[in-house]
Amino acid sequence: MLLECVQPHPLCAETGAEGWLRYAPLDAAQAEKYNSLPASVVLFGNSGVLESAQSELIRGVRGMLGRTLRKEQVLPREKAIVLGTLDALHDAFPELREPPALGKDGYWLTAGRSHGFDCLIITAKTERGVLYGMFALLSKISRNESIVALDEVQQPSAPLRWVDEWDNLDGSIERGYAGNSIFFEKGAVRADLTRAGDYARLLASVGINGCALNNVNADPHALEAGFLPQLARIADVFRPWGVQIALSVDVSSPKLIGGLDTFDPLDPRVADWWKQKADEIYRQIPDFGGFVVKADSEGRAGPSSYGRTPAGAANVIARALQPHGGYLFYRAFVYDHHLDWTNLKNDRARAAYDTFHPLDGKFDDNVILQIKYGPIDFQVREPVSPLFGGLEKTNQAIELQITQEYTGQQRHLCFLIPMWKETLDFDLHANGNSSPVKDLVAGKTFHRPMGGFVGVANVGLDANWLGHPLAMANLYGFGRLAWNPDLSAQAIAEEWTRLTFGNDPQVVQTIDAMQLASWRIYEDYTGPLGAGTLTNILGPHYGPGVESSERNGWGMWHRDDHDGIGVDRTVATGTGFVGQYSPPVAKLYESVSGTPDQLLLFFHHVPYTHVLHSGKTVIQYIYDSHYEGAEKASNYVLQWQSLKGRVDDQRYADVLARLEYQAGHAIVWRDAVCNWFLRVSGIPDTKGRVGNYPGRVEAESMQLQGYVSTDVVPPEDASGGKAVTCPEQLQRCEASYQFKGAAGWYEIDVEYFDLSSGQSRFRVLVGDQEVDEWTADAQLPGMKLSADSSIRRRITGLALRPGDEIRIEGYPDGGERAPLDYVELSTPGQR
Amino acid sequence: MLLECVQPHPLCAETGAEGWLRYAPLDAAQAEKYNSLPASVVLFGNSGVLESAQSELIRGVRGMLGRTLRKEQVLPREKAIVLGTLDALHDAFPELREPPALGKDGYWLTAGRSHGFDCLIITAKTERGVLYGMFALLSKISRNESIVALDEVQQPSAPLRWVDEWDNLDGSIERGYAGNSIFFEKGAVRADLTRAGDYARLLASVGINGCALNNVNADPHALEAGFLPQLARIADVFRPWGVQIALSVDVSSPKLIGGLDTFDPLDPRVADWWKQKADEIYRQIPDFGGFVVKADSEGRAGPSSYGRTPAGAANVIARALQPHGGYLFYRAFVYDHHLDWTNLKNDRARAAYDTFHPLDGKFDDNVILQIKYGPIDFQVREPVSPLFGGLEKTNQAIELQITQEYTGQQRHLCFLIPMWKETLDFDLHANGNSSPVKDLVAGKTFHRPMGGFVGVANVGLDANWLGHPLAMANLYGFGRLAWNPDLSAQAIAEEWTRLTFGNDPQVVQTIDAMQLASWRIYEDYTGPLGAGTLTNILGPHYGPGVESSERNGWGMWHRDDHDGIGVDRTVATGTGFVGQYSPPVAKLYESVSGTPDQLLLFFHHVPYTHVLHSGKTVIQYIYDSHYEGAEKASNYVLQWQSLKGRVDDQRYADVLARLEYQAGHAIVWRDAVCNWFLRVSGIPDTKGRVGNYPGRVEAESMQLQGYVSTDVVPPEDASGGKAVTCPEQLQRCEASYQFKGAAGWYEIDVEYFDLSSGQSRFRVLVGDQEVDEWTADAQLPGMKLSADSSIRRRITGLALRPGDEIRIEGYPDGGERAPLDYVELSTPGQR
Repeated sequence: MLLECVQPHPLCAETGAEGWLRYAPLDAAQAEKYNSLPASVVLFGNSGVLESAQSELIRGVRGMLGRTLRKEQVLPREKAIVLGTLDALHDAFPELREPPALGKDGYWLTAGRSHGFDCLIITAKTERGVLYGMFALLSKISRNESIVALDEVQQPSAPLRWVDEWDNLDGSIERGYAGNSIFFEKGAVRADLTRAGDYARLLASVGINGCALNNVNADPHALEAGFLPQLARIADVFRPWGVQIALSVDVSSPKLIGGLDTFDPLDPRVADWWKQKADEIYRQIPDFGGFVVKADSEGRAGPSSYGRTPAGAANVIARALQPHGGYLFYRAFVYDHHLDWTNLKNDRARAAYDTFHPLDGKFDDNVILQIKYGPIDFQVREPVSPLFGGLEKTNQAIELQITQEYTGQQRHLCFLIPMWKETLDFDLHANGNSSPVKDLVAGKTFHRPMGGFVGVANVGLDANWLGHPLAMANLYGFGRLAWNPDLSAQAIAEEWTRLTFGNDPQVVQTIDAMQLASWRIYEDYTGPLGAGTLTNILGPHYGPGVESSERNGWGMWHRDDHDGIGVDRTVATGTGFVGQYSPPVAKLYESVSGTPDQLLLFFHHVPYTHVLHSGKTVIQYIYDSHYEGAEKASNYVLQWQSLKGRVDDQRYADVLARLEYQAGHAIVWRDAVCNWFLRVSGIPDTKGRVGNYPGRVEAESMQLQGYVSTDVVPPEDASGGKAVTCPEQLQRCEASYQFKGAAGWYEIDVEYFDLSSGQSRFRVLVGDQEVDEWTADAQLPGMKLSADSSIRRRITGLALRPGDEIRIEGYPDGGERAPLDYVELSTPGQR
Repeated sequence: MLLECVQPHPLCAETGAEGWLRYAPLDAAQAEKYNSLPASVVLFGNSGVLESAQSELIRGVRGMLGRTLRKEQVLPREKAIVLGTLDALHDAFPELREPPALGKDGYWLTAGRSHGFDCLIITAKTERGVLYGMFALLSKISRNESIVALDEVQQPSAPLRWVDEWDNLDGSIERGYAGNSIFFEKGAVRADLTRAGDYARLLASVGINGCALNNVNADPHALEAGFLPQLARIADVFRPWGVQIALSVDVSSPKLIGGLDTFDPLDPRVADWWKQKADEIYRQIPDFGGFVVKADSEGRAGPSSYGRTPAGAANVIARALQPHGGYLFYRAFVYDHHLDWTNLKNDRARAAYDTFHPLDGKFDDNVILQIKYGPIDFQVREPVSPLFGGLEKTNQAIELQITQEYTGQQRHLCFLIPMWKETLDFDLHANGNSSPVKDLVAGKTFHRPMGGFVGVANVGLDANWLGHPLAMANLYGFGRLAWNPDLSAQAIAEEWTRLTFGNDPQVVQTIDAMQLASWRIYEDYTGPLGAGTLTNILGPHYGPGVESSERNGWGMWHRDDHDGIGVDRTVATGTGFVGQYSPPVAKLYESVSGTPDQLLLFFHHVPYTHVLHSGKTVIQYIYDSHYEGAEKASNYVLQWQSLKGRVDDQRYADVLARLEYQAGHAIVWRDAVCNWFLRVSGIPDTKGRVGNYPGRVEAESMQLQGYVSTDVVPPEDASGGKAVTCPEQLQRCEASYQFKGAAGWYEIDVEYFDLSSGQSRFRVLVGDQEVDEWTADAQLPGMKLSADSSIRRRITGLALRPGDEIRIEGYPDGGERAPLDYVELSTPGQR
């Protein structure tokens, strides 16, 4: 009645929409540190970016300290916070000297005096730098750091710090896991761009300065004349935050929408078409960032149609952008997905280097090669792409994936910063000397004019942007690493947690520990030892699907058979991929002994009985890591539960529900992968776990009424390879069995399948007593019985007695036939 | 995505819908106490009430302890919880002997043995008693009490423990403050009776066994043949909880809907009509509870039309109910609201006794006189109604008001149990010996067959039933007192808080302290010394309205004039009301010295300079109590804020918003009442506060653009007697002034009016900087500028400098003209 929650408000439930810019009130003890903060904020200048900086500073201080700073245009006769570029401040603060370390987009927080009053100065060479400095000051307050006697210069590592969004014009998002597009719906730009503006604000706060709005599998209609004014509306809400917009384009656009009969890059009509199009765009969006190109890849048109190189295609477009200061990002993700998998010399991992290394020096100066961090495709573990080291005369950017396409799709916790850090810190010895990836992509190693970081974000309309509240740490961390790749994963995690959940030490320690362990845990229960994620690469890239990444044109990822596993990529006997690295790196990977365990199967084919550096055999490591990983995933639930009452109820509940789901799905992964390798290798788990599930009763072995047993393909996607489903014409089916264990308190896990095609209902009864009932309405990928749709319901606190009948009733709905895999009993604390 | 909140769930936001039956999980340390709880619950019998008891026990244990008890119909070969009447348990537990103290509706929690196994037995003479015993056990667990070796007999004090709901058939509720009716909408019974069933469960849990569904200002259509099947649907959802439904009826129904030309109770056709109607009802609702009658009161028809007495009217209806076991509650709230107020001998307080005392012994045995606790009408402080002591041969029930009609309407915190306790414990010396009200109404004093408690509840469709989450303690406490009036207010508060917010000692202590102080605090800032609430009795009974309760036919409540205040009700010189009490009580009240300060003005007219027992003058007490009360009300906010993170976010926010509103509205009360008495008495506040508001700037004294000054009637409803409003034809008005105080941090309170007729918008600017903006959309009573609609917006953390222009912009909407009263500045901590 008296409380409105239309706007963010400290009393309103936390949806996550504010991300790390919550500006939640500091408690009194924390706030005391800022008692001497000036009461006024003076802005020198009047651009949109500067006004954002002043307004945001007022908003942040108001939220955290409960004070409204006075908005001034001239220096008051009292101490003040001062915002402005060095040029603008020169007359008022003539003593300020530009620090040598300060460049474009960097900022300087320092002290000054005016009229005898102390001032806290936020300045920079550019207006964008002032904005970044202001966000840095707010971040310090939010993290309860001291702001006394600041004298801090921060300069971003690389000039280009972009995100790509794979949004389609119809509003869907390719590999998006948090609702529809914030930009597009039904083939047009959304009328309400509030969320787009909010997103630009989040991006700016971590120093991101560019955003490609649409799917790299690009719809050429985005370039049509009628669409450009709509895009200009997006640019308008991004501009005050200093974020340039860009577009993904199809290289065949001159033919598809341009009225030409060709898109041959060497045809002057094509060059002219691109020039006209670029001019048209810049007339409406003067600060347009440029284009992203995916060509000759996964069915996209490309210059190969005309026998031209990627350089030819890139340059013709880049030249149209060049007069306007635009950039052309050309994706190095070019490979043949119809590869002959029977030829063991063929290797998709070689493709990027083979294609682009010979073209080094052939690209214009406003072209940036956009290179995925690994040679395959965003796997949980890959070696660093050798192409980073193979370009000395070409701009490059590293492409990281914030959206967790292969790493749990924001249903699983997977903090990717430690992985990105390993990549960025990896030394490719490209010029014979030290050349870590972070220096190569920043253009430092070979003194390139341009370079940087691209993160594929794919935020959506869901209030919390990415789906999993904890996944926002990946977006935050991407921005922070792009700004400063020398930051540690620990430091980034802690910054994010403090900003997002406050400064309670127990909250910070717990969430940081969960985040920092999560990538290795995810790797452990999915695809360890460099075998790739082992996900279903022909389906949604989500649940386990070991077979899918072998024996087809897309997949030659681990080449496991009865005798062994791994891809021999050595020069001596394999695909030769190792030879793409510089000699010091190649030497390491060429030998089994030099290759770290975690990448062994990426580089070498070994018997299952091969003994790792760790002393374990490969096969036992696979078993052990899956059991340990699944157990650690289930411990997240307990870790999180220790925070009840310390984080707000809404986010607490949201995260807990996801962690409980993850704990169950980690077991689906564990069982599928372990059983697959048990079947293929024939080597049993020395600890006797794989294939042996005490307390588990398969649905297909129960007494069935109505339910029929069904083979699941691949069989490892269901326990025992089978499930039961309720035929469409029945309203209800039953599966029951008699409990024969000892009397006591039990937990029952019911493993079932929740498809997107309907909302079945389930009831569980002990004797005639209903002990649980639920509707299968989780939003999981997959239209069929598979590990993608497998989900667990845990029923705790059941008193069972020998002879009890345990019965599951399924009520099918839509195309979903109340499918059931198994039940598993355990006593509390047993798991 | 993964979390559904359609059903109550520990992870879902707390709306208050569960009331005190949340069954929230106990933490591990608390739960350990119940480790040895049996795993089975055996039900002897199979009625709806017994099945509710078994299901509810399972639900409660599941919620609090995470265990699902086994539902058994026969004793298992292990320890068990046993539910059943003594008769039903006899064969299995032949050693159980009925405790002498056990009567109808009472219960017995005890231990027994069967087949060598210990059993926890919940038994009673009646099925309803078993249900009550089960709720008692759950309450112990919820409050973390021991349940070891229970042997406890509890017997309700009185047989009739009813609630009245003043619901109209159109869905509105007279004096309801939490949404529309849970029973009716648009002239019919609601299709969805889920909330009605939930309500019956709440009622049963505190032992309430009857509920009159509709307004005592009764719509006769509820009795029509077509309506009865609809009422039967309500009875069906109430029956499993042992709660009988009843109806309020209009005594003129035989004429209004019966086709007769009379409703004369002595006319045989009228008697026959009531008999036929009762028979018709009981055919459809065999356990129908009976009727409630309001007659010859506030414009309702009554037997006086035919020169008949209330006894005549009551008995004719009661005789129709008698064969079916139904009751007739006849309200003693009969008075003349066209009284000649110029005759100082006239006294509304006398009416009930004058009317009903002479009729003692004339009522049938199934008639109960329903008597409000005081002689006026639910005021914050009244003496006990003398009628309780004036009936020796008539059944009686006390009518208490759970809905806070005169005590803040669930926008203000006012825990009424301490007031009710004072009433119930008051000894009327009715038979020359001790006769506290609680014994009289229970029928104990004069050995009446019937008697009891009626609470006017008026719950609504709002999720939390009563509006203010803390107000549910009044509904809970009513039930507990009706069961056992010897319970202390402290004990009841603590029970409720533990059940509603858990067992955290800080939470329990803080909320209990707030609740227990709240009635006195409300009294202090409204109408102290027995002067009545001083509310607007001609309007919504909400904000201050001192004048309204004088000099009209309804009101002769405090008779204040230039010389003094109070109603002389003595026998010697006044209305003679004191003479309605027994001699020992009358002796006390007849003299000024014998009358306690808190009732002084109810019984005596004294000069403002009269010195109280406390040593203060009356006038200074009025000033002091209002300032102290308002200050204590503002302290609620701080008390509540100390619980942040210890109660769930949603209820935390909801309560905080209400307390902040109350803190502001207490000042409206303070200022209105104090200024009224300053004007009438001409005696200044010795502390100089009244009429002197440093930091306050009246809107009418500001520089106005568009806004026009308006007189508010009565003048004390607005500061300075005036407000400013924005003429309808304008889109925006402004009121501004120049700040002349010292530079510093300030808080600004903006006092404005929020009418029900529109949603104005306000903006506050300092210079050109907007520092706040809001929409006036609180749901307050009142269509005009008044203390009912006066509301405060507090803006904190403003840095002001001498010369600043402070500007309020008002944007009228609908009929609401952005009305503004004043702004008041203070420095933090100053208030």
